[in-house]
Amino acid sequence: MSEHAGTSGERMFKRLALIGVGLIGSSISHAARRAGLVGEIVGSSSTAETRDKAEALGLVSKAYADPADAVRGADIVILCTPVGAYGEIAKAIGPHLEKDAIVSDVGSVKAAAVRDIAPHIPGGVHFIAGHPVAGTEQSGPEAGFAELFDGRWCILTPEADADRMALAKLETFWQRLGSQVEIMTPEHHDLVLAITSHIPHLIAYNIVNTAAHLGRVTDSEVIKFSAGGFRDFTRIAASDPVMWRDVFLNNKEAVLEMLGRFSEDLVSLQRAIRFSDAATLERLFAEARAIRRGIIQAGQDTAMPDFGRRPEGTKPSES
Amino acid sequence: MSEHAGTSGERMFKRLALIGVGLIGSSISHAARRAGLVGEIVGSSSTAETRDKAEALGLVSKAYADPADAVRGADIVILCTPVGAYGEIAKAIGPHLEKDAIVSDVGSVKAAAVRDIAPHIPGGVHFIAGHPVAGTEQSGPEAGFAELFDGRWCILTPEADADRMALAKLETFWQRLGSQVEIMTPEHHDLVLAITSHIPHLIAYNIVNTAAHLGRVTDSEVIKFSAGGFRDFTRIAASDPVMWRDVFLNNKEAVLEMLGRFSEDLVSLQRAIRFSDAATLERLFAEARAIRRGIIQAGQDTAMPDFGRRPEGTKPSES
Repeated sequence: MSEHAGTSGERMFKRLALIGVGLIGSSISHAARRAGLVGEIVGSSSTAETRDKAEALGLVSKAYADPADAVRGADIVILCTPVGAYGEIAKAIGPHLEKDAIVSDVGSVKAAAVRDIAPHIPGGVHFIAGHPVAGTEQSGPEAGFAELFDGRWCILTPEADADRMALAKLETFWQRLGSQVEIMTPEHHDLVLAITSHIPHLIAYNIVNTAAHLGRVTDSEVIKFSAGGFRDFTRIAASDPVMWRDVFLNNKEAVLEMLGRFSEDLVSLQRAIRFSDAATLERLFAEARAIRRGIIQAGQDTAMPDFGRRPEGTKPSES
Repeated sequence: MSEHAGTSGERMFKRLALIGVGLIGSSISHAARRAGLVGEIVGSSSTAETRDKAEALGLVSKAYADPADAVRGADIVILCTPVGAYGEIAKAIGPHLEKDAIVSDVGSVKAAAVRDIAPHIPGGVHFIAGHPVAGTEQSGPEAGFAELFDGRWCILTPEADADRMALAKLETFWQRLGSQVEIMTPEHHDLVLAITSHIPHLIAYNIVNTAAHLGRVTDSEVIKFSAGGFRDFTRIAASDPVMWRDVFLNNKEAVLEMLGRFSEDLVSLQRAIRFSDAATLERLFAEARAIRRGIIQAGQDTAMPDFGRRPEGTKPSES
């Protein structure tokens, strides 16, 4: 354990309370354990099954039904539920938060997180919203793993009057979980993530649903021939529906703005196809490669060709 | 070698001519060698650099500038160039094809392939169009590998009067390359691939270009925070621009029809966001998971969470 990334041996917090123990909550537990960052981890979930699993998997020493019970005695509290639940949770935990505790979250929208949580945080408790830009299409307490945040970015969106010591401590916490940290305003976060995450998920969900309701092409054909590109979209369209519902309801303005841009651009590609404008098509397709190269150079993806990857357990048709 | 998938030891053809030696052509060479299917492999490319690489890599014993030279003495000829070049190539090779040779292709559109190739094929030569539904975002002769077709589907679109023996032989050839084979009409192929491959690529190219031209979000931010979903789109948007230009120019009708359906569905999602219709959003997102499950069950993808994959060579920020 002590040889792992981010390990310092030094405990930063005595008790971490994870409000929600799904993919991100469980990954924080694994990564915090790997780095020896906290003395004890407790959690809460409104679902009995999740509580049982979180305890059975050792993600938390105790999983409570009521988040107010989980935050008692915790010097760091992280909300890891869908953002639609934040207001109610913040209201429930507010009176029970320890003085000088840090309260944060991992939600994919930040202006709404600040709007719903901040009013319930008492004086002397430090609220700093956050978002680790990392995930998989899996959900639930079994889905987490310690390496999820390694090399990824975590965005923190402190309010202007945020406590500098608490901010520095939360920043170090995320670095020791394996992340790089960037600070920005909640509004700018929501605009950036609208294009890098929310719109990609929306159009992935959309094409999967379009494909599922075509009379002239069967579902079985869509599935069989998905290796031509469609498959990549289904992966992100398998992400948690409730989490994503809440993202779109809580980042409406930026999503609608970016969707407008996307649709305008798509109409112009559609015109280029209709009028056989070969030069425009080739130019636009070639430009897209440069962005891809940037992502690989920035270490946010691998250049290995995984679009053609061999599915595990698949046998060739003859042997 | 003899232990590999698809190996029979039995040579099916004496001389294979690959017209074009990019990702697919070079993968056919590797897979045909792995299975011991052909005596000799020759090729052609209009690019001197590609010819040199194809010979240096041992993909072909000889790479010609003129496709007519490559097809002399070949009992199987496979066009592996962008589909926009088919008419000219077919015209050039037609007079030089061996009697009883099989001519096929690997293009992503099939009605246009038949339209452009069939008129140039002399009597006694068997033309059967084909499309292995497999690929990666890499291109060029170095990109190929023997396993590319393993467990994937190859679609053959013979004309009604196609020679049954030649069809059976081509089907066996693709099975020994590792594929499963499906037969359908060129028109149905083009409709199915429009939704499973062409539209996914078009919207991937589109979102990458939209993201690249946002004033309020920098390219550097798009790249840094791409792990939120955008990254998956850039992978397929890195595919060969000329190949994809030709796909859209040659499958206009089906692509425009499917794009119309996609855009209608997207507008209805947009309305659900604008009017905060939580129930519709959650229902549509949940439905998309079922299609994903089908793809994994059909062996066309793995359930491993690769959306969160660790980039090679990336070190955590602390150690």
